[in-house]
Amino acid sequence: MSSDWIVDALQQGLQRESSEALHRQLYHRLRDWIRQGRLRGGTTLPASRQLANALRLGRNTVLAAYDQLLAEGYLEARHGSGTYVSDVFEPHRSPQPAATPTLPGLSRRGQLMSQHSKLPQGLYGAFAPGVPALDAFPQQQWQRLLARHNKQPGPEWLSYSQDGGLTALREVLCDYLCQSRSVQCRPEQILITQGAQQALELCARLLADPGDTVWLEEPGYAGAQAAMAAADLDIVPVPVDSEGLNPAAAPSSQTPKLIYITPSHQYPSGVVMSLARRLELLKLAETHQSWIIEDDYDSEFRYRSQPLASLQGLANGGTVIYLGTFSKVMYPGLRLGYLVLPEALIDPFRASYARLYREGHYPIQAALADFIAEGHFARHIRRMRELYQIRQTLLRETLLGRLGERIELSPGEAGMHLVATLPDTIDEQHLSAIAAREGLWLRPLGRHFWGPATRRGLVLGYAGVPEAELRRSALRLAELFKQEERRYGSSNPEPKERSR
Amino acid sequence: MSSDWIVDALQQGLQRESSEALHRQLYHRLRDWIRQGRLRGGTTLPASRQLANALRLGRNTVLAAYDQLLAEGYLEARHGSGTYVSDVFEPHRSPQPAATPTLPGLSRRGQLMSQHSKLPQGLYGAFAPGVPALDAFPQQQWQRLLARHNKQPGPEWLSYSQDGGLTALREVLCDYLCQSRSVQCRPEQILITQGAQQALELCARLLADPGDTVWLEEPGYAGAQAAMAAADLDIVPVPVDSEGLNPAAAPSSQTPKLIYITPSHQYPSGVVMSLARRLELLKLAETHQSWIIEDDYDSEFRYRSQPLASLQGLANGGTVIYLGTFSKVMYPGLRLGYLVLPEALIDPFRASYARLYREGHYPIQAALADFIAEGHFARHIRRMRELYQIRQTLLRETLLGRLGERIELSPGEAGMHLVATLPDTIDEQHLSAIAAREGLWLRPLGRHFWGPATRRGLVLGYAGVPEAELRRSALRLAELFKQEERRYGSSNPEPKERSR
Repeated sequence: MSSDWIVDALQQGLQRESSEALHRQLYHRLRDWIRQGRLRGGTTLPASRQLANALRLGRNTVLAAYDQLLAEGYLEARHGSGTYVSDVFEPHRSPQPAATPTLPGLSRRGQLMSQHSKLPQGLYGAFAPGVPALDAFPQQQWQRLLARHNKQPGPEWLSYSQDGGLTALREVLCDYLCQSRSVQCRPEQILITQGAQQALELCARLLADPGDTVWLEEPGYAGAQAAMAAADLDIVPVPVDSEGLNPAAAPSSQTPKLIYITPSHQYPSGVVMSLARRLELLKLAETHQSWIIEDDYDSEFRYRSQPLASLQGLANGGTVIYLGTFSKVMYPGLRLGYLVLPEALIDPFRASYARLYREGHYPIQAALADFIAEGHFARHIRRMRELYQIRQTLLRETLLGRLGERIELSPGEAGMHLVATLPDTIDEQHLSAIAAREGLWLRPLGRHFWGPATRRGLVLGYAGVPEAELRRSALRLAELFKQEERRYGSSNPEPKERSR
Repeated sequence: MSSDWIVDALQQGLQRESSEALHRQLYHRLRDWIRQGRLRGGTTLPASRQLANALRLGRNTVLAAYDQLLAEGYLEARHGSGTYVSDVFEPHRSPQPAATPTLPGLSRRGQLMSQHSKLPQGLYGAFAPGVPALDAFPQQQWQRLLARHNKQPGPEWLSYSQDGGLTALREVLCDYLCQSRSVQCRPEQILITQGAQQALELCARLLADPGDTVWLEEPGYAGAQAAMAAADLDIVPVPVDSEGLNPAAAPSSQTPKLIYITPSHQYPSGVVMSLARRLELLKLAETHQSWIIEDDYDSEFRYRSQPLASLQGLANGGTVIYLGTFSKVMYPGLRLGYLVLPEALIDPFRASYARLYREGHYPIQAALADFIAEGHFARHIRRMRELYQIRQTLLRETLLGRLGERIELSPGEAGMHLVATLPDTIDEQHLSAIAAREGLWLRPLGRHFWGPATRRGLVLGYAGVPEAELRRSALRLAELFKQEERRYGSSNPEPKERSR
């Protein structure tokens, strides 16, 4: 088959001023023609020297294009008889999709996860929950430590690792958890993860199989709901009362394989799990052979007493896996969390973690270890505890001053957010939507329910909002609330005149 | 009930020289006695002032201990009648586990994962596979960029993010992939992940449900096997022949939902998937509505041509998801990888990723974007390509010089490791074990089989090993090989005299 047209077509097609190298242009033209069937299987290509002369190119340019096409299988070289187009592409059967090809869809769990993964609009500022005071983070000390450890890391920090996290970090963290949270552990029991979510994921899959039941607090933490759904567990939302997750309210037909709780400071309600309830849950877990995952995400910020002792410590290890994060005490973008594992789980968790996710960021772990060892960590927590109490008080007093008893605020003995329960006359979705237009991020409480929401409310983060902005935003929120009251024709009297 | 003994016991128990604060000592003593049933429910505690006097402590010290015990539910305060031990602990029913409590076990998939997650002993040095030349990494430029971007990051880098990765990084990466790998994409299609493993995990779960079939290359990448097992997929290992994964060798009864392949450089065999096979797979995926995951982990290091065009580009997107990592071209501890997604998957993947794993490390992503934009990345790859070719040649010639045709080495047109096929007379496990005693890490090929291994061999990484060490190690490996030959009574003649 003749290929005279090739030389002419290439002569016209090559763009000598283009930023794309000439050998790449040659390669692309020939490849496209082969794919389109314009260059049929069996066609002899001009010899490289001949083509180079005709196109006024160096022979190496042509050879580079031919070599690439040979390597990728578009051309074949036959000894002594030149270079041919290979037979792979049938004419008129282009692999390029015609118009809109039908694509396979998401998996069932993929759809479930996507539905429950509506992303919040605002990621910081008033009233994004879960965001610490980034404005008050000791950047100078932290960057000094980061710079120290970023310098000339050895191969053991740059390569793959499987120690369960940097030993120095596990040691200082162990001391900290034992002292301040009554966790009972050795440094070997700690597994450093890239955030608490990864830790949750690991627990969900190593400890439960598809279809196994997991109890989640209702309302609860959306990240835990997503991790459990992604692990194909059967999520049973168990209502939270004034003592925390209430096992008596769970269906008796399904015994849980996993129980996920936030006993020190229930998320988002703020309830502290009572001692009686803790003992009841430990007993129940022993009876049913369930694992308890204790997520202690923000209990450093307890204002009127020291942080509460952990369930893990009360259980003396046992079936409790303790889970923590540095997102609240440091900052979320740091992506560091940890698990405290019972002895029997250390080896399988460490191996599966290294295999499934791989470890990394050892320089950052080393900086964090020093940050803790040098006292910056404890000092920062102390300062933040005072600051968050000031910010909470400001938010509370501003809202109560404007709205009185028309909204009910959670007690707020701890933490970084308050829950405002709304009267039935206010639509939390609509209020959030109009607030978002003004850059106020109100998280509807409904987002924290896995099942149908039984309460209307807003989760209001205050920790990360400087005071002036917080006051301004709270005043604006009160205005919007009143506007919504009027919109729904509520005839609520002004504050203080209303009795409940 | 009288509590006179409490004062005496505390007086004896308090250690005034201890580093533990006195209020914590008080708290711990009382808490332990309550848990042990020594302080029964209903017991009145001494008034704080009285106890403080008796113990010669400040009253605030006693109050701090009492407050903590009240907050944790061990004590109850009744108005006007002092502080009582709460009724929660039944006598003789200590929550402390008796001796060795029975713990629930691992899940079925947890056991499967653990079995397949045997960790390699050596993580760098001769002949750890997959480790780049950490000794030749341009630390100075990289640290300058890291330091630049670590300085005073704004809240958008410290807080939670949901952009699918830093925009600047997605843009330069998109240019790079389009130019050097013929990937067809827009920056929006890229999702930056914390390593390729996380990207695999996400695909496995968003695109397939438990029990769905996934085709994996046999032998293949252990990380993919682990991710698929963790996602409860039904793994069908499909043999790799000289053209790559061979669909004709797969059982016809199970149509795959996912097909995971490394077409540019099959891991670990090094085979390049032929064009005919690529087209066959694309057609098959279209017919069966399967997703193809194309893992292009190290094809930057192709020695005699440019990197091969991706399957994703050949398919013009379609059902192919392209997956890459920075572990090989940068270093593993960096923990950055990426997905190039079909348009329809961008939103669900981005939302699920932010929810399931959360994003982070934006300063590092910014440093990497600059590293690419300023040309360091391309320069480093070019230098490493030359270096790895030198190292591969050294390894090959040293082994062949000593062992001749007694071992067969993979062609090695690319990459960071060679596969040495061993004769049946050599036990790869035993050879690896004795080599490990001398600090030589030989990965048995058997580890890369999901089913029974059909070939004996070793995966020998050379990219990360400086030349002197590499030569020394290769000589030693040849010695050990000969020693094993003798051990098994093989009467193989010396090299060159043996015919096959």
